[in-house]
Amino acid sequence: MGSPRFSDFVSIRDFSKQEISFVLKKAKQMVPFASGEEKSNALEGKILGTLFYEPSTRTRLSFESAMLRLGGAVMGFSSPMGTSIEKGENLSDTIRVTETYADILVIRHPLEGAARLAADLSTKPVVNAGDGAGQHPTQTILDLFTMLESKEKLEGLNVVILGDLKFGRTVHSLSEALALFGANLTFVAPPSLELPKEVIAEIESKGCRPRYATALEDAVKDADVLYVTRIQKERFADATEYAKVAGSYRIDSKLLSKGKSTLSVMHPLPRISEIAPEVDSTSHSLYFKQAAYGIPVRMAILSMLLGVEF
Amino acid sequence: MGSPRFSDFVSIRDFSKQEISFVLKKAKQMVPFASGEEKSNALEGKILGTLFYEPSTRTRLSFESAMLRLGGAVMGFSSPMGTSIEKGENLSDTIRVTETYADILVIRHPLEGAARLAADLSTKPVVNAGDGAGQHPTQTILDLFTMLESKEKLEGLNVVILGDLKFGRTVHSLSEALALFGANLTFVAPPSLELPKEVIAEIESKGCRPRYATALEDAVKDADVLYVTRIQKERFADATEYAKVAGSYRIDSKLLSKGKSTLSVMHPLPRISEIAPEVDSTSHSLYFKQAAYGIPVRMAILSMLLGVEF
Amino acid sequence: MGSPRFSDFVSIRDFSKQEISFVLKKAKQMVPFASGEEKSNALEGKILGTLFYEPSTRTRLSFESAMLRLGGAVMGFSSPMGTSIEKGENLSDTIRVTETYADILVIRHPLEGAARLAADLSTKPVVNAGDGAGQHPTQTILDLFTMLESKEKLEGLNVVILGDLKFGRTVHSLSEALALFGANLTFVAPPSLELPKEVIAEIESKGCRPRYATALEDAVKDADVLYVTRIQKERFADATEYAKVAGSYRIDSKLLSKGKSTLSVMHPLPRISEIAPEVDSTSHSLYFKQAAYGIPVRMAILSMLLGVEF
Repeated sequence: MGSPRFSDFVSIRDFSKQEISFVLKKAKQMVPFASGEEKSNALEGKILGTLFYEPSTRTRLSFESAMLRLGGAVMGFSSPMGTSIEKGENLSDTIRVTETYADILVIRHPLEGAARLAADLSTKPVVNAGDGAGQHPTQTILDLFTMLESKEKLEGLNVVILGDLKFGRTVHSLSEALALFGANLTFVAPPSLELPKEVIAEIESKGCRPRYATALEDAVKDADVLYVTRIQKERFADATEYAKVAGSYRIDSKLLSKGKSTLSVMHPLPRISEIAPEVDSTSHSLYFKQAAYGIPVRMAILSMLLGVEF
Repeated sequence: MGSPRFSDFVSIRDFSKQEISFVLKKAKQMVPFASGEEKSNALEGKILGTLFYEPSTRTRLSFESAMLRLGGAVMGFSSPMGTSIEKGENLSDTIRVTETYADILVIRHPLEGAARLAADLSTKPVVNAGDGAGQHPTQTILDLFTMLESKEKLEGLNVVILGDLKFGRTVHSLSEALALFGANLTFVAPPSLELPKEVIAEIESKGCRPRYATALEDAVKDADVLYVTRIQKERFADATEYAKVAGSYRIDSKLLSKGKSTLSVMHPLPRISEIAPEVDSTSHSLYFKQAAYGIPVRMAILSMLLGVEF
Repeated sequence: MGSPRFSDFVSIRDFSKQEISFVLKKAKQMVPFASGEEKSNALEGKILGTLFYEPSTRTRLSFESAMLRLGGAVMGFSSPMGTSIEKGENLSDTIRVTETYADILVIRHPLEGAARLAADLSTKPVVNAGDGAGQHPTQTILDLFTMLESKEKLEGLNVVILGDLKFGRTVHSLSEALALFGANLTFVAPPSLELPKEVIAEIESKGCRPRYATALEDAVKDADVLYVTRIQKERFADATEYAKVAGSYRIDSKLLSKGKSTLSVMHPLPRISEIAPEVDSTSHSLYFKQAAYGIPVRMAILSMLLGVEF
């Protein structure tokens, strides 16, 4: 059996367990190139087009860095301001034009389904860098990669996922992927921000029996990984309600002392006040390493989609 | 006789028929490099400075792509926000400073004459990427190139030009160039958006006897190319008037069935609703190919101005 | 004695006279690379991250150009719009994440001390491209370099510094550096925009006895260099007061005729109306050359910080 071939990277649901494992293996190979320890010009002459219809420093810059580190070039826009989108151009036309300027496109868009539309239209590979409440599959791969690097295996791993589980797109695809790999999932969310029924159904269809907790202290007790996400103020009608929720889900040293000594805290970043700064310097903090793994993961995805072998 | 030398690319009026033909021939040579079929690092070590005082995804990205595909590098700004222009710096100073940072400058500016001023000041080559109601000469070259690739010759070609002929800078330089090459021109415009007298005079001075039509159905009958441009809402005092005009100039399959089977529709893009989406998949649609030809045309212009031989 | 090693470039106060001289010597070496006369790929495979929390065309583009000319690559943001800073991310987190994407960071920030914080946090070299009313050390190096290239030595050089001496960060670090090199300083400022006491103390501690003038005509008489800075309208409560001050400090041919024939006028640019355009074409004008020297100076600083020998 040869290597799987990928034409686009739109949703984690498009991939089998074997295919995801293959991407994770490729990402591992990229680590020395990401750190600069090894050099490569494998993507020389290739152009990445970045179409960011919504702001995202971290995601955009990590794609750019991944491309540049492998000798490729980058062009595009980081916000729709100052583009023909402002003149009223539809997404289809923008894709059909920009795909002739680049070898691969990365798109972030406020509307769910935008990346799929782009992938269907374009003859060039398209990577979804987040589409509304939809998917953000390269984030999921880097989350899995981080857990794998830190904990060695995903099967049987106790993962607690905390925060806005309703609107957080990161959380949906991550949960589904973790279920696929046999991790044990515990969800902790404020009322009204719980995991949507269809995501639960998807997870259960993979043989996972998730637990639901409200008290964070109980949930962290046997956790290997605590995955924290942002709770957005805008989701609450009442500021006092928000403050109460945000306060009760704040991760600090006191809380972490209730868990295993090997408990790792992850966060897709940016964080606001979900994690106390005192955690940064402890061995629990895995979030900056997680961010850094964006480079090898995106190197792997870009080179696979461009058909470049390593 | 050697190759003509170009120091700047400001207005199509600066060039003779022979010179334009030479650029078109060079663009033809660039097609395999634009598609990535052939590789070149001919512009390695050269820096393109993009000074976009006005938004333009398409034009900016196609210049960037052309530069990157030939191994060059790009820096600049895509809107005046966040630049010293906001601090009140005049154009002359910006040019005098940025020209020392780059090997060639591409400028788009809301004011007519800005590119000429830049070219006069700068010791480095300057390309006009659109100056107000003035010129957009690289668009004209790519329009001519598209017609030539599709129809084989420009002489005797029946071209219908439709839309806002008063303010559309694309249309002015294209009409003049087509007249120079002996094409037959028919203009279709709503009242008050007709071609300016001085453009008509320029066209007639080249021996062209343009026709003027109001009914689009008649005009397309013997047309080889239908060149459509945007009619901007802002040009109308009354929204009902705009809707009426926009509606009567909409290109759809029914209209195209009145013309030759080989009739090609072009548009500088972005389009709003001038061309019905149903046209996209027909053999009449030439506008996406036209957009793609921006790359070989701009590759030719950049390398000629930089004195790099192919 | 070997070459001095630099880990960051945050404040001119961090460096000894020998170290500054070393940077100036390196900048001299870079001149043929900046002009394109000589080619180098010494920084190939290196990525510069540009973190501009405040607009600055000139500084940002000159860093980018310096990096690209030496074969390096660039990524980053030119304004905080469209970045996770808008989502409320703090500076520390942005630094900790972006430093894993790049080999060296250049930061401009509205708050004094931001660059120092970044340098302390980051394991990669950090260059301060201006932090509020604080420092802008690469500007100081290029100012010194310009004087040295034009006047051959700094010791005993008569330098008049004019404008907003209170808030102008350029002026503070330049004055201190010039004092260190034994230049004679004369300060001319409108009332309420005089040099802060602590800067005067710093200058005097280096053995310099500055002069203070109000009449520009007297001050320029024996000057070798007249360093002009912008007086910002916002500093004045009253528009009439501003107009009076701006008018009395305007540099024109008439004023320059009172000085030496070899008097050179410098300005960090952008200028608004401080220097009359008539000066541009005279031998007094040194400001465009000064701007151009930004490239070799930043080439020297980037390659030294990246540990690349020339």
